[in-house]
Amino acid sequence: MPSYRNLDESSAFKDLLALGPPPSLASLLSGKRVGDCEMAMGGGLSFNWAASPVDSPRLDLLGRLAEEQELVAKFRLLSSGEVMNPGEKRLVLHHLSRGELTGKVVRDGRDYGAFYAGELAKIKAFAAKVHAGEIKGSTGKRFDTVVQIGIGGSDLGPRALYLALERWAKAKGRSRMAARFISNVDPDDADSVLASIDPASSLFILVSKSGTTQETLANETLVKTRLAAAGLDPSRHLVAVTSETSPLAKSPSYLAAFFMDDYIGGRYSSTSAVGGVVLSLALGSDTFAELLAGAHEEDLLALNPEPRKNPALLDALIGLYERNVLGYAATAVLPYSEALSRFPAHLQQLDMESNGKRVSRSGEALAYKTGPLVFGEPGTNGQHSFYQLLHQGTDVIPLQFVGFRENQLSPDVLSEDSTSRAKLDANLAAQIIAFAAGKSDAEANKHFPGERPSTLIHGKALDARALGALLAHFENKVAFQGFAWNINSFDQEGVQLGKLLAKKVLAGREEAEAKSKGQGPEAALAAYALLLGLGRK
Amino acid sequence: MPSYRNLDESSAFKDLLALGPPPSLASLLSGKRVGDCEMAMGGGLSFNWAASPVDSPRLDLLGRLAEEQELVAKFRLLSSGEVMNPGEKRLVLHHLSRGELTGKVVRDGRDYGAFYAGELAKIKAFAAKVHAGEIKGSTGKRFDTVVQIGIGGSDLGPRALYLALERWAKAKGRSRMAARFISNVDPDDADSVLASIDPASSLFILVSKSGTTQETLANETLVKTRLAAAGLDPSRHLVAVTSETSPLAKSPSYLAAFFMDDYIGGRYSSTSAVGGVVLSLALGSDTFAELLAGAHEEDLLALNPEPRKNPALLDALIGLYERNVLGYAATAVLPYSEALSRFPAHLQQLDMESNGKRVSRSGEALAYKTGPLVFGEPGTNGQHSFYQLLHQGTDVIPLQFVGFRENQLSPDVLSEDSTSRAKLDANLAAQIIAFAAGKSDAEANKHFPGERPSTLIHGKALDARALGALLAHFENKVAFQGFAWNINSFDQEGVQLGKLLAKKVLAGREEAEAKSKGQGPEAALAAYALLLGLGRK
Repeated sequence: MPSYRNLDESSAFKDLLALGPPPSLASLLSGKRVGDCEMAMGGGLSFNWAASPVDSPRLDLLGRLAEEQELVAKFRLLSSGEVMNPGEKRLVLHHLSRGELTGKVVRDGRDYGAFYAGELAKIKAFAAKVHAGEIKGSTGKRFDTVVQIGIGGSDLGPRALYLALERWAKAKGRSRMAARFISNVDPDDADSVLASIDPASSLFILVSKSGTTQETLANETLVKTRLAAAGLDPSRHLVAVTSETSPLAKSPSYLAAFFMDDYIGGRYSSTSAVGGVVLSLALGSDTFAELLAGAHEEDLLALNPEPRKNPALLDALIGLYERNVLGYAATAVLPYSEALSRFPAHLQQLDMESNGKRVSRSGEALAYKTGPLVFGEPGTNGQHSFYQLLHQGTDVIPLQFVGFRENQLSPDVLSEDSTSRAKLDANLAAQIIAFAAGKSDAEANKHFPGERPSTLIHGKALDARALGALLAHFENKVAFQGFAWNINSFDQEGVQLGKLLAKKVLAGREEAEAKSKGQGPEAALAAYALLLGLGRK
Repeated sequence: MPSYRNLDESSAFKDLLALGPPPSLASLLSGKRVGDCEMAMGGGLSFNWAASPVDSPRLDLLGRLAEEQELVAKFRLLSSGEVMNPGEKRLVLHHLSRGELTGKVVRDGRDYGAFYAGELAKIKAFAAKVHAGEIKGSTGKRFDTVVQIGIGGSDLGPRALYLALERWAKAKGRSRMAARFISNVDPDDADSVLASIDPASSLFILVSKSGTTQETLANETLVKTRLAAAGLDPSRHLVAVTSETSPLAKSPSYLAAFFMDDYIGGRYSSTSAVGGVVLSLALGSDTFAELLAGAHEEDLLALNPEPRKNPALLDALIGLYERNVLGYAATAVLPYSEALSRFPAHLQQLDMESNGKRVSRSGEALAYKTGPLVFGEPGTNGQHSFYQLLHQGTDVIPLQFVGFRENQLSPDVLSEDSTSRAKLDANLAAQIIAFAAGKSDAEANKHFPGERPSTLIHGKALDARALGALLAHFENKVAFQGFAWNINSFDQEGVQLGKLLAKKVLAGREEAEAKSKGQGPEAALAAYALLLGLGRK
């Protein structure tokens, strides 16, 4: 069994610190290095780390760190069904939703791979019936729109993936239904979506693992109320994605129920039924199957103990070097692809909810930094926005670029002697070098210090397989970093306190005026509730 | 005339550092403090700083810092038409687009207030004709959709404002046209928008101050090509927003042209013609006038030298304390309002492009941190995403909450004994306290350290006036911080190098293969260009 040690106990980590600052990026860069730092990912993608601050001695030490922290061994444990979420005493099985990595996982008599495959088959059969018009709305209209009701992992990942493939599916003739998403408990969110669709031809997917998510249940009530007011039978317009033990599992309020379980966390659930139902309905079951295949290809690479052949591991180690040796606090994710407009928001949850932890898996406070802040917007848009600070601000923020050589659907148009596609990709190449190498200028405000590191994921086109690989790459990167930091990347206790206090405000609002007179946080809570219009009859 | 001194020369700043750590938030909080820390903003909004780490001695020192750095005096100079953008030798006049603050600004024979008012009158008259059907598309269809083509400040602010008021305008019967936005040079962006509208009834607004923005011109070419292919006359479907000296200003390719000028920067241009045309067409001229009025109310408050009566100044000083005394690197903007879903993206540009600077206005490298990283998503969505790191991560990230007491349009629905609105606001109140006060727990992963500071902007409802005030508040906050840091918040030289290198890649792509054999950043640039499919015939 691997042992669990904090990062600062690793001798390779100490050696990395002792090695001092890395060589400058400007001195590292060459055409040859760009070629040497290119490696294959799944889904036809490549990972390039030429513009990262890792040279050969540092790469060797990072490889030793990976061995000392037993990162790949721990990834194998995960995939083979060990309890890798000790806080909640749970297995971590999202990989199994796209294929076996290290054999079957059987617990308490259940073969989990077979369970996930069974749900996938149910989804495929259901989608086929909807597409064929065998399942229709309560007024007899065929369903042409699917609306996902969910929040957090039930929203961000599936939404990002749908947006990423919407135009590609159109180009391939695979587009089956339009998809929309309702997440916020702000009722103007749900009503805004409802105003833009025809409820009579819309199928709603209620997604909540526990069946008790406050926001999602409130939105279910809202949607059902609106459907009933429009003369529709809500039970013929809703399906559920939930766990078998949830109150939603066997309710007659739904046309059908599809199951996931506690061994797939919300932010890792896009390849389970949580993403499967909406993506299969909207973009076709073949598209979802290809997405899973791409993710599985990428997962297989994560089993390789050699960082130069394991892109997620190398990406994780570079990020660790930037966070814990160079001390950088944030990472920007910058896809040069409008289709990936919400992919950074998904990664924000994936990374920050997984690795935003201050105690080790055994509960000691850590003496080093863990997960960085993750944010991003598509390029070239970001260039005209926050890149100013990235180039010339007082903090260095490492960058993760993503780019493709082909459009998804658009036939391109020439302007000023080049296509839009060429401009997009030229800007991407240019930014990597501008950030890394900078430019001297006698005028101080035109001087670029450079030495802003980046990596690049690139491929021919953003198709379902590439997208699956991209998704899995970041999931596995986050897992490797969590193992290196010796934290539990798979719980999220930090979301509980707010829920608890919100219930207190809602439950006791008549007492708010009295309470608000007092000292301390509880009194302040009541006072804030009053400011926000709660607590008055 | 005020003098320009670096922050670390201020004696109040030194005293703030010497004062040591602030009292704990848990000890500061009380019902009374929530009341005491409430102050009026424009547009019917309030600013509350009870959960910030500023007590009475620190507030006094921050007030002294504001005096020493002459923050309000510099704001007055700005509004009175001094050259406050020394790098580009420009005045900074966005305030004047919504009203006079300290009198007329006349330069080189032009009364700028009258100029902006004149353009506003032109916009109002044009919108009236479009709404009345006097101006129609080339096939005789009435315009029912307006599409803004612009990037950066020509996109983020106007888009955020449109989304913020779309449903409110519907509720008030003011909704005139649907608005859409094309920004990215990725052609799938433009084509995706075009696929969702009827071009025959769509009016396009080309927004580029210089008339040379590469992405915007490429999108113009794409849109014109598609319109012509659909049998439409592009010149009868396009208007321009540009400067009088730009190549677009007097072109016969446009139905009309509306002007701004070099004295209003892109990220500050939402209240000029850049936001005015699209918002007046989509939501009505009255709505845009109310937005301007709300912004002007807020601007007037920024002239008050007393921080306790100047919300933007106080907000700026609190942010400065968190950045330069407590050392926090980022700020999260968290609106509990789905309508503000893209407002954080606008603030990200506004703040990071303005204050992401490493040299003083006179060109010395600074020894302290300037603008923070700014990011955010609407609550409650963020709670189910990155809040884990905000609560239990290893870095403290201060928070700016925004909330309202009423829905925009939705008639609310009860679920589990409370409305969605009550749940939304209860969560907001709860999070403020959860972040500030934390919670002890014997289980380390359930322990919340607290001491995460926040401020709250709140109001009755998000209407046009409130939104204008919210916009102006952050603009003025950013300006005050820029003055305190002694930087030029109004240029953006950091965006130039990438543009230059991108042109190099596009211009010399046939040479890429040869170049990529060499050493150094230029060779690496060529190699990256090849990887991305450029440079091959």
